[in-house]
Amino acid sequence: MRLRNKPWARPLIAAHPEYVIENPSELKGKWSEKFANHTAPLHVEVGMGKGQFIVEMAKKHPDVNFVGLELQAVAVGYALKKQLEAQLPNLLLVVANGAALTEFFEAGEVAQLYLNFSDPWPKKRNAKRRLTYPTFLKTYQAILQPAGVIQFKTDNRGLFEYSLQSMNNYGMEFCDVCLDLHHSETYLEANVMTEYEAKFYQKGPIYQLIARFK
Amino acid sequence: MRLRNKPWARPLIAAHPEYVIENPSELKGKWSEKFANHTAPLHVEVGMGKGQFIVEMAKKHPDVNFVGLELQAVAVGYALKKQLEAQLPNLLLVVANGAALTEFFEAGEVAQLYLNFSDPWPKKRNAKRRLTYPTFLKTYQAILQPAGVIQFKTDNRGLFEYSLQSMNNYGMEFCDVCLDLHHSETYLEANVMTEYEAKFYQKGPIYQLIARFK
Repeated sequence: MRLRNKPWARPLIAAHPEYVIENPSELKGKWSEKFANHTAPLHVEVGMGKGQFIVEMAKKHPDVNFVGLELQAVAVGYALKKQLEAQLPNLLLVVANGAALTEFFEAGEVAQLYLNFSDPWPKKRNAKRRLTYPTFLKTYQAILQPAGVIQFKTDNRGLFEYSLQSMNNYGMEFCDVCLDLHHSETYLEANVMTEYEAKFYQKGPIYQLIARFK
Repeated sequence: MRLRNKPWARPLIAAHPEYVIENPSELKGKWSEKFANHTAPLHVEVGMGKGQFIVEMAKKHPDVNFVGLELQAVAVGYALKKQLEAQLPNLLLVVANGAALTEFFEAGEVAQLYLNFSDPWPKKRNAKRRLTYPTFLKTYQAILQPAGVIQFKTDNRGLFEYSLQSMNNYGMEFCDVCLDLHHSETYLEANVMTEYEAKFYQKGPIYQLIARFK
């Protein structure tokens, strides 16, 4: 969702190149060098918003390196504030969008991808903007390890229906499907909420699909 | 769901061999001869219950031949009562279950299969009894035409989650996914309700998957 501009965001980002990577393409194939732990697997969230999910994930999984991508600088500013407080050695942020993933990551460099509550683009003519449209899937496939998975979460029924079909038709293998995350004990234990999810999970089901390329 | 026994059911069935096929294996490869229209495509419902769905479908689609399978004779008795009233030339009933499909139908003899609100068998150790377990899918694949589809409908979340994964993992192609049939105008127009669905659709979402073998 679009956020109101904040004049503090861009200067704050510029002041912290240790956390917000300015030229991510320069790290292509070399992300592990940028983290304290050079051998940890790399997980990437596309569209991290204000970063609640990825910051919590990075806290919960110190043995994994995380990169959060987000197009809106303001949102990255909020995520950076969280990171400045947490100072996690396994989290880096990038102001960028999902279409450019292959510019930033080498083939097989990423172990896992997260897509959380991405824009549903409900109109059919905008289908190609949905983050589970085949062109995006192709991009994910290009940077993911062979066994690497995509974890996709949304509260938007139309987007989830579309994505089940799109990912199936692309030839992806479903590892797990959950149609009501917040009423599924086995899933809730592992679930880390996004800002959006924390606000809206009581209004209706949260859907989740975990899938991988074959 | 299990029905209370009715003493009238078996005699009624025995009295109407023109509607309830006693030896379905004898019709293998020859079902079309048994219908008024010899060239219409054949659609089969596995587990028709008391038959509301298939009787309505047969009324709505006179250009299609329907066969309804159901293991419980009592339920077939109720379906037969509906058929005795409607006297549809494009509907036949069988007392049998889904496991025996290949005994009854020739390879490619069936154009479409319906699975409606089948038993969810929620315990993991009973997974192989679910009508979307791989052994059943193999049976469906054996009797369906290459472009033939399965239309699967349930209100059971666990069964639907399982089935999405099972049918995906089997290599089936999803043609359509709907996670709330009764709040989807485009689907409702075409939807024919089962007895069970008519009773329970207001309590929670009805899920539907249309898929085919590749």
